[in-house]
Amino acid sequence: MKCTLVDVAPESDFSIQNLPYGVYSTAGAAEPRVGVAIGDYALDMCALAQRGLFDGIDGLDAARVFGQPRLNEFMGLGRPVWRPVREALQCFLSDAEHPVRKGLDGVDSVAVPLSAVRMHLPANIGDYTDFYASREHATNVGVMFRGKDNALMPNWTHLPVGYHGRASSIVVSGTELRRPSGQRRPDPEQPPVFGPSVRLDYELEMGWFVGPGNELGTPLTIEQAEERIFGVVLMNDWSARDIQAWEYVPLGPFLGKNFGTTISPWVVTMDALEPFRVPQPAQDPEPLPYLRSPPGAPAAAGYDIQLGVDIRPSGRDEFFPLTRSNLKYMYWTLRQQLVHHAINGCNMRPGDLCGTGTISGPTEEAFGSMLELSWSGKKDIALGSSGLTRKFIQDNDVIRITGHCQGDGFRVGFGECAGLILPAQ
Amino acid sequence: MKCTLVDVAPESDFSIQNLPYGVYSTAGAAEPRVGVAIGDYALDMCALAQRGLFDGIDGLDAARVFGQPRLNEFMGLGRPVWRPVREALQCFLSDAEHPVRKGLDGVDSVAVPLSAVRMHLPANIGDYTDFYASREHATNVGVMFRGKDNALMPNWTHLPVGYHGRASSIVVSGTELRRPSGQRRPDPEQPPVFGPSVRLDYELEMGWFVGPGNELGTPLTIEQAEERIFGVVLMNDWSARDIQAWEYVPLGPFLGKNFGTTISPWVVTMDALEPFRVPQPAQDPEPLPYLRSPPGAPAAAGYDIQLGVDIRPSGRDEFFPLTRSNLKYMYWTLRQQLVHHAINGCNMRPGDLCGTGTISGPTEEAFGSMLELSWSGKKDIALGSSGLTRKFIQDNDVIRITGHCQGDGFRVGFGECAGLILPAQ
Repeated sequence: MKCTLVDVAPESDFSIQNLPYGVYSTAGAAEPRVGVAIGDYALDMCALAQRGLFDGIDGLDAARVFGQPRLNEFMGLGRPVWRPVREALQCFLSDAEHPVRKGLDGVDSVAVPLSAVRMHLPANIGDYTDFYASREHATNVGVMFRGKDNALMPNWTHLPVGYHGRASSIVVSGTELRRPSGQRRPDPEQPPVFGPSVRLDYELEMGWFVGPGNELGTPLTIEQAEERIFGVVLMNDWSARDIQAWEYVPLGPFLGKNFGTTISPWVVTMDALEPFRVPQPAQDPEPLPYLRSPPGAPAAAGYDIQLGVDIRPSGRDEFFPLTRSNLKYMYWTLRQQLVHHAINGCNMRPGDLCGTGTISGPTEEAFGSMLELSWSGKKDIALGSSGLTRKFIQDNDVIRITGHCQGDGFRVGFGECAGLILPAQ
Repeated sequence: MKCTLVDVAPESDFSIQNLPYGVYSTAGAAEPRVGVAIGDYALDMCALAQRGLFDGIDGLDAARVFGQPRLNEFMGLGRPVWRPVREALQCFLSDAEHPVRKGLDGVDSVAVPLSAVRMHLPANIGDYTDFYASREHATNVGVMFRGKDNALMPNWTHLPVGYHGRASSIVVSGTELRRPSGQRRPDPEQPPVFGPSVRLDYELEMGWFVGPGNELGTPLTIEQAEERIFGVVLMNDWSARDIQAWEYVPLGPFLGKNFGTTISPWVVTMDALEPFRVPQPAQDPEPLPYLRSPPGAPAAAGYDIQLGVDIRPSGRDEFFPLTRSNLKYMYWTLRQQLVHHAINGCNMRPGDLCGTGTISGPTEEAFGSMLELSWSGKKDIALGSSGLTRKFIQDNDVIRITGHCQGDGFRVGFGECAGLILPAQ
């Protein structure tokens, strides 16, 4: 299938096979609105709805749903609505004779160049949860903190460990964040001190948005979880390792994390990712029944998404690579994360965001944080052949995450998730 | 000062000195609206605004703010608005010659009996954070889990330990909750099993609502924190101890908590609590400067609030006492909790909710959870002289929290925070 409305380069993240959803505004129209990215354009979903493109889709009041400044209501409608909308868009974009195409006065009447949009958070995020689902990452961190023999906690292979994060400080790519200050204890024999974090780190993650929710007290099954994830974004779970190390026992990370979490603005749907399913890593021991692959859904619940983290060091114009990883390394799958989250009856709402946890892989280049790359600050991370090094993030460094699935002549990509660190106040 | 509009018994929680805010609906008016409790009535704040009671208060568009189905916007306006509104209400309620009183066609034109209202959550809770600020509780739990010599973690006396909770599952008093199922490991030598929690517990807490917020990246000072807490409710942080014990290492409690948190519906303002300030417990070591009492605010930052927890066991009509405690035992004050939360630049929003953590006191009757009362299930808790006992909560038990400040001939009370536990699904 080929887009005939606008040109889409083979290396574009936003092919007709992708069609990710986002919320944007322009200088001339400041009210945020729902868009879909194609090539170098954002389609105006409300304008397309008004032209009748989604007429006849059961359960969708398109002009209203796409006239909102966020995607929560659309996310809540579920696959029976998401799929026909995707099909309608693909028909519209590929078929030059499509009835809605005929009435167009050029592409500008239903789309704006991506160069002219300002992106917003795609949803009102009611709750944000972060998992810890990469075995390699959990093992690396465990070895550093507790030694090789006690690296993984006894619960880790039985359930996707997760914890609640802060929703208010989730920001969209491009937002500058200030280096946090807080309590840390550099000398374990001395009292803690207060000041800017000196071990500021990134975490390469992906975030997934909840689609239709569940009522409080009514758990999901894994069959339902398979159908209720709307889509995926790139995520940087910025972490102040020194604040975190001092505060996190016994109730978990708090101020070491909640000063900011950055996500990419375009939500790539599970339908777009479907062709890139791969088997997840073998799970041993076999998980309890509620976490097992459902009979009615594909057994392969991993996704082959190539991920990269690059740094633009303070004072430089170019980026240097830090991490090259892949979502397919993730031990606990997205649907396992969701079904576990709701198994006690916890109610999930459309637009809730869950992070996978740091996505590390089996080799050093796939380590998803500076904590792992510098092995807790014990060695320098060389930035290409620049002669520069890092152990942790310095002021005015930019960290950028990118990712895509490689199809045959096209990509299903995520755009970027980038942020600059301002000096502490 | 005496209310002359309606009778208020001396033992009523809702005296003219109190005037807590809530959101209610009635059978005849299903849209939730803002109310203030007085005696056995809820004042309709929108009706009072329309009659001009709040005219002339700077920065308050009263008809709009009180015409909303939640308190977030009012919470965000801050003390310069909260105080004149309180004064206007006290004048209106006490002065039989008040101009707004003269036009009334009986109390029913601006109030409804509490017996006729259905209460809702007072705010749209964007984020919910739970602290762990009672030394007695943290010590009790620490002794049980790690022994007497390692009861308190090294960070505990340096900062108010807190963690993020789940906002979606916060419910208002009276909501029935289902016993959660999940993974637990009754035999530490065997793999985990799945099933209903058998160690379901309550936690006696208070919750406080954030007033005016702060921008991401801009910490609060403790002077600002003193001014930015709107008010307080009773809170039951229901806990499944067996699920929690298995899951919580290393990232903290998750499914052991997020199946439900109950709060009382009426928010008692800090202005109403002002006369009940008492010194907080001595803090040793002295905290870091950002946590110290501010020069411009009262040094006494504790509050003398008598708290009780009672149980109505399944099949009985009467309640039996479990806990008798007091907020004044809390080591870390509310303003210390707030300033710590934002010291890294984390943005707080009007209507965010923070829990104090379990409020235990120095004597056994002041233990704020069954975990402590039964010493981790090792002994029976006698329910009065009924002959009944509990170690943890059984199906169809009701747990009820109440609380009040005792004035001279009046109370500033909180109503109740109650919930029944339904059997697991």
